[in-house]
Amino acid sequence: MDIPFSRIKGGVGAPLGFLTSAVSCGIKNPDSPRLDLALIYSERPCSSAGTFTTNRVKAAPVRVSQANLRKGDLRAIIANSGNANACTGVQGIHDAHAMCDAVAKPLGLKRTEVGVASTGVIGLPMPMLRFEPKYDDLLERLGPKNGSDVAAAIITSDTHAKEVSISFDLGEHRVRLGGCVKGAGMISPSMATMLCFITTDATISSDNLRKAVLECVEESFNRITIDGDMSTNDTVMVLANGASKMPAIRRNSANCKVFRQALGWLMLELAKAVVRDGERVTKFVTVKVEGARTYLDAKKVAEAVCKSALVKASWNGGDPNWGRIIHAVGYSRARIREELVDIHIGGKAACLGGLQAATPMDELREVVSFPEFEIVIHLNQGDAGYTMYSSDLSPEYIDFNRSEYAYWKQARKDGLV
Amino acid sequence: MDIPFSRIKGGVGAPLGFLTSAVSCGIKNPDSPRLDLALIYSERPCSSAGTFTTNRVKAAPVRVSQANLRKGDLRAIIANSGNANACTGVQGIHDAHAMCDAVAKPLGLKRTEVGVASTGVIGLPMPMLRFEPKYDDLLERLGPKNGSDVAAAIITSDTHAKEVSISFDLGEHRVRLGGCVKGAGMISPSMATMLCFITTDATISSDNLRKAVLECVEESFNRITIDGDMSTNDTVMVLANGASKMPAIRRNSANCKVFRQALGWLMLELAKAVVRDGERVTKFVTVKVEGARTYLDAKKVAEAVCKSALVKASWNGGDPNWGRIIHAVGYSRARIREELVDIHIGGKAACLGGLQAATPMDELREVVSFPEFEIVIHLNQGDAGYTMYSSDLSPEYIDFNRSEYAYWKQARKDGLV
Repeated sequence: MDIPFSRIKGGVGAPLGFLTSAVSCGIKNPDSPRLDLALIYSERPCSSAGTFTTNRVKAAPVRVSQANLRKGDLRAIIANSGNANACTGVQGIHDAHAMCDAVAKPLGLKRTEVGVASTGVIGLPMPMLRFEPKYDDLLERLGPKNGSDVAAAIITSDTHAKEVSISFDLGEHRVRLGGCVKGAGMISPSMATMLCFITTDATISSDNLRKAVLECVEESFNRITIDGDMSTNDTVMVLANGASKMPAIRRNSANCKVFRQALGWLMLELAKAVVRDGERVTKFVTVKVEGARTYLDAKKVAEAVCKSALVKASWNGGDPNWGRIIHAVGYSRARIREELVDIHIGGKAACLGGLQAATPMDELREVVSFPEFEIVIHLNQGDAGYTMYSSDLSPEYIDFNRSEYAYWKQARKDGLV
Repeated sequence: MDIPFSRIKGGVGAPLGFLTSAVSCGIKNPDSPRLDLALIYSERPCSSAGTFTTNRVKAAPVRVSQANLRKGDLRAIIANSGNANACTGVQGIHDAHAMCDAVAKPLGLKRTEVGVASTGVIGLPMPMLRFEPKYDDLLERLGPKNGSDVAAAIITSDTHAKEVSISFDLGEHRVRLGGCVKGAGMISPSMATMLCFITTDATISSDNLRKAVLECVEESFNRITIDGDMSTNDTVMVLANGASKMPAIRRNSANCKVFRQALGWLMLELAKAVVRDGERVTKFVTVKVEGARTYLDAKKVAEAVCKSALVKASWNGGDPNWGRIIHAVGYSRARIREELVDIHIGGKAACLGGLQAATPMDELREVVSFPEFEIVIHLNQGDAGYTMYSSDLSPEYIDFNRSEYAYWKQARKDGLV
């Protein structure tokens, strides 16, 4: 591992002083006991920070968590999968509050100290009656070894739970960071979310934590795309409880730098894991734009290429199609000059100065036959760059997303619609 | 027909004084005699106008046609399918000039009086040696009855040729308008273009024609999307030769209004035909946004909905999924308020005030089971509106676009790469 951290087990339960649990309420699938309600709780007061979807249509739990974070720090997070609690109006806000209340009182917390997150189908009322008999069990199971249950309880169409935890030294103190994540954008079939929860036993003020979180999200979760569809529920929430007993991390200190580096690495690992586990994804593609006049130009080019249906279809087909890449570069609205554009695929020149390079086609085809490869687009106009992590788009993805009628049928059976 | 025009036969050959022809050069498929080189020629001097792709990567024929239009009016158009002559550098410009020269001299025209257009794979040199033996045949076949051959010669992955021609009266004079079109955006498999040629025997100055063309393109071709991929070759060129002997159409006259209406109707018919014939398309969906604060807000909402992979996948599956529609409305960057959004599908309420409407699910499912339906999104914030014409996205589309390796293999056989 080329990073100064050690991987450890435990996910969000790995940092000291965090207890977690998860139960099955039959929301995701009434006939199968999959975990779908999770709780993260810190035994000590926490600093906290969060970032949320910029979609103007925001799910109720997003609105409630944002409001709670404005009022002070969180100390617990409750989350469910199977229903996004989005486009559910006043009732949705009421239901999100009820989820916070259900765990706040037994834990001795205020409602505003609980963050809440949901992921699942949009526009259906929350099946609150399925939660209520399970809250006692959820609280009873709280323990220091159940981090992976949280990761499992928040996934929907993901093929596996995704969590990363590490330990590293800040001065003389060993601290731990743990995180779990599900979905990305709206890759999920009828689901509507990317959820990420991160815990740490480092000691850091909320202000410093917020700054680190915003910077790290910008370089990780904001750089992935699978289908270009921004969700109504995107949520990243981070809790830091200081249980490592280290002195508080001061802004711009050496410790702050290491913590920022560790948090950034962890978020990027989680973000990449989301792309790799994208629905029916067969390729993980890193797109590096270099030589742009500005950061924004570089970003526009990377986003246009990573979101183009035709580029993504060619990746699915193992076709090293630089013509489609440069056509997306051209319509990105960045300031580019066709005759200066170089494109390298897996280190081999595919296009030089806007024209076909001499690399034999078979060499390029070999590169894109691998499940992971890198494309470098050099605009030769300046020094700015931007990197994104993307996937192919497969016929199976479209097929998978053709209908969520089954969810409506279930909601009707539950008497909700 | 609820329009004050009569449909007539003949496509771009229908207006008086236009001769057309097409031949097969084996560019599209060396082994099968499909038409792939076309010529439109007016016996009389013309007014002319054109609009072209705004992609910064522009094909050589786009650059040459733009330059020729700046120098004066066109009187002929030469077009090929099978190779886009895009990303071909100085050689591409040279080849586009050679195509103009090949017909200009025999027809007694200057090179700058010939428009040129290409559609096909990007980044491969033009197989000029295949054209050269065919120019004589192309010129000899020029006649007043071959309009449909032009429509056939420019298609690539289209399932059929698309042309519309009409006649109508301007004062006491009967005039004719004919048009043909292929592809849209980058719907084509390895092709890169939407091409549209329109002829008329009306008498109109280039200035007035240009104004009418720009207005009509804005309301037709700029309002369709299949895969969101803007091409490097998009071209609309219009020739008006005055062969109807009518007096010139004056700006803002009654005749100008009727001509504008007829041109607008013809372009919209052609644009819709492109969407209906999109690759592996099964649904034609009209998305009307109403009640926006500004025209630009309405446009942003329509584009976000029409380009969302998840919305398009749900249309493919016959799923009346308003949750996915409102999630795209939310991330469109338009100023919207979730609690004011109404969505009607085929005239039936699916979402009212941001919440699920009472319409039974089965009624909504019936509407989207049809091959064509309309979705009205009312933002209830103002008076501005915008309409777009879109399609579903099918697993078969992705499958169809996985690889264009076959084109590279052919180019290698031709000694071009």
